[in-house]
Amino acid sequence: MSESSQNVPGLSKHRIEALADGIFAVAMTLLVLDIKMPETLSYASEGDLWHRLVALEHAIASYAISFVMLSVYWVTHHYQFHYIERTDRGLLWINLYLLLAITLVPFTTDLVGDNVHLRLPALLYGVNLLLIAAAFIAQAEYVRRHHHLAGPDMQRAGALLRRRAWLLTIVPVVSMGMAFYSPRLALYLYLTLPLLHMVRSGLDGPKPSSDRRSR
Amino acid sequence: MSESSQNVPGLSKHRIEALADGIFAVAMTLLVLDIKMPETLSYASEGDLWHRLVALEHAIASYAISFVMLSVYWVTHHYQFHYIERTDRGLLWINLYLLLAITLVPFTTDLVGDNVHLRLPALLYGVNLLLIAAAFIAQAEYVRRHHHLAGPDMQRAGALLRRRAWLLTIVPVVSMGMAFYSPRLALYLYLTLPLLHMVRSGLDGPKPSSDRRSR
Amino acid sequence: MSESSQNVPGLSKHRIEALADGIFAVAMTLLVLDIKMPETLSYASEGDLWHRLVALEHAIASYAISFVMLSVYWVTHHYQFHYIERTDRGLLWINLYLLLAITLVPFTTDLVGDNVHLRLPALLYGVNLLLIAAAFIAQAEYVRRHHHLAGPDMQRAGALLRRRAWLLTIVPVVSMGMAFYSPRLALYLYLTLPLLHMVRSGLDGPKPSSDRRSR
Amino acid sequence: MSESSQNVPGLSKHRIEALADGIFAVAMTLLVLDIKMPETLSYASEGDLWHRLVALEHAIASYAISFVMLSVYWVTHHYQFHYIERTDRGLLWINLYLLLAITLVPFTTDLVGDNVHLRLPALLYGVNLLLIAAAFIAQAEYVRRHHHLAGPDMQRAGALLRRRAWLLTIVPVVSMGMAFYSPRLALYLYLTLPLLHMVRSGLDGPKPSSDRRSR
Repeated sequence: MSESSQNVPGLSKHRIEALADGIFAVAMTLLVLDIKMPETLSYASEGDLWHRLVALEHAIASYAISFVMLSVYWVTHHYQFHYIERTDRGLLWINLYLLLAITLVPFTTDLVGDNVHLRLPALLYGVNLLLIAAAFIAQAEYVRRHHHLAGPDMQRAGALLRRRAWLLTIVPVVSMGMAFYSPRLALYLYLTLPLLHMVRSGLDGPKPSSDRRSR
Repeated sequence: MSESSQNVPGLSKHRIEALADGIFAVAMTLLVLDIKMPETLSYASEGDLWHRLVALEHAIASYAISFVMLSVYWVTHHYQFHYIERTDRGLLWINLYLLLAITLVPFTTDLVGDNVHLRLPALLYGVNLLLIAAAFIAQAEYVRRHHHLAGPDMQRAGALLRRRAWLLTIVPVVSMGMAFYSPRLALYLYLTLPLLHMVRSGLDGPKPSSDRRSR
Repeated sequence: MSESSQNVPGLSKHRIEALADGIFAVAMTLLVLDIKMPETLSYASEGDLWHRLVALEHAIASYAISFVMLSVYWVTHHYQFHYIERTDRGLLWINLYLLLAITLVPFTTDLVGDNVHLRLPALLYGVNLLLIAAAFIAQAEYVRRHHHLAGPDMQRAGALLRRRAWLLTIVPVVSMGMAFYSPRLALYLYLTLPLLHMVRSGLDGPKPSSDRRSR
Repeated sequence: MSESSQNVPGLSKHRIEALADGIFAVAMTLLVLDIKMPETLSYASEGDLWHRLVALEHAIASYAISFVMLSVYWVTHHYQFHYIERTDRGLLWINLYLLLAITLVPFTTDLVGDNVHLRLPALLYGVNLLLIAAAFIAQAEYVRRHHHLAGPDMQRAGALLRRRAWLLTIVPVVSMGMAFYSPRLALYLYLTLPLLHMVRSGLDGPKPSSDRRSR
């Protein structure tokens, strides 16, 4: 079935990449709307505005953290689809489930940013991120079982992609535990995931794949 | 007129796919805005927040249902354009009418989510989804009559695509009838369409087309 | 300078098409936000909701009209770029000016929809649409003077595209005059532009170009 | 390592371009939302509406200025990626940092538009634009050190791109100084950057690159 790569059944991966890029772009830009929503932005003096901005600390922090989390997820999606060459109905639905969880991030980010003194928002935020991690794990597993969807480089890269997807579950779990002691600490803990992610990429050694589609 | 596929008149299908992916992406992400709009998101205690979230049940349910409906429509659009190879002015306008109906979904979803005790929102939501189904039927019929717009695989796939488009009308019609007894039941009934849609895909047998554009 | 089409200086047209499609997609989807903004959407009875929806007549009408206008502009942009093969700095800035005018449409649409009894919004809406028409005329003229940016089909299509761009100015001018008698009539008058546009396409005769990029 | 351009490791540049175009499109369209947010848009008379629009002068001015600034940044991004042929993890993260700063522009624009009498918003706006300039400088430097990511034309164009990126820092610095005397003047001073940018393009001489990817 895969001897002739021209005749393998499957849909182009272009459309789902375009939908994902669009949803990531809108979700990343909508995050900032939460910072200004609570009230009108006109202030009488420099001091008033300064105090207001300081009071927005958690909204701004949760904005930046969510933007970075969405960046990590977008890079993960980019890497997985770098090795995927075509899609089928199952892979489309895994992606649509992933995108559903992505569109929830602006909402749970709001909850955390406005209620940094409560445990429940931190837990809901953690659940949201675990749902996203589950989608990436499901996608990596699905491609392993339907290897005609991936290119030949997937042989080498598959295990790495699966390990990386599992890695996405660690920080939310630790942070959700932390939320019982300090929701604020739990929020800032998420900053370690991107760091972890960037450090791991240093361990990659020479990039495992050569890209023949350099466009 | 179609002996040389190079000289067939017609516009590239790339632009309308990009516009559709963009509008789907924005509409899917805007749905979540409705969950938080009604009030500021800061709460005094875990209990307050919990009660608020429970009270949002219908807003959250209608959000998830609309996201899944838009997913079904996006997959339908993806499948139809998998077989379409170029567009003309008529096909562009059918798509623009489809996208007009798609952009109404966040509005009718709001109405349903905030007024689950009323019949009228359930009926308007049903009408909105029927308008979308009509667009897909129109598109499938249009391509049948202008077969130079489609590739050779359309011969085999055309009937299936038309049947699938008609399938989209069943659940809204049943749900609109149900709304006279229980608007709430009518809302949850929409969950059966994606299930039906996924089951049918199991009946597809081996995928009817081989994709020569595997990118 | 244009003997070898491979060595003609110029930027890919892909990026500006993607930016335009994105801005059109967001603007078209944002239009609907105006229908619901004014108040919360929860109503006590079917009658209340019905009265509210009837009161929204002009908001809904201006939404539909603006969506159709943006559709006309998107189709115009699509047709012009069908013949354009590469861009330069000047063409990029004409497009960015066009997109600035496009992003104003949700704002002027709001003004018209909420103030159908006033003349000023109808005039501002007309000015907005004239700014858009001016951008399309500028683009068609620019390409005539920099013919290395267009493909060989532009020879035949150029005059048609320029005439079509000028056509976009007629209805706003007539509607702005009408606004002094009845702003409401001026609003509904815009519905004739798409009709005019569709009828003209019937006059096109056989499509003037054969597309060699059928993707 | 670069003798065979087919085997150079690296990711396609298509995805990051699509994400950037999406975020620019949403940010450019969201800017307009600020003009209408402060209140409902229904007015009793032409005079009321006229006074309101005049009172919005600064919101409208900051909208137009931010749109033009984002246009300058988008053109800069377009030019840099015109010479970049593939990406790696480092370049992705530089771009994600750039896009984070881009999504802040609607927020800082709001602050400036609603508080043209204060110094702090003008300073925050300047800092935001400096963060963006820093991202473009970082990108130009990164590509210089990882020259396998760029095509052969980068040899000639690299110095020009780096100079242009540094140019982006001048106006924000001058404007931030000006803000201590007149925040209003500081706002309008930004209009000189695009002018400067356009004039410089006149100095470019014959376009330094021939584009072999004319699509």
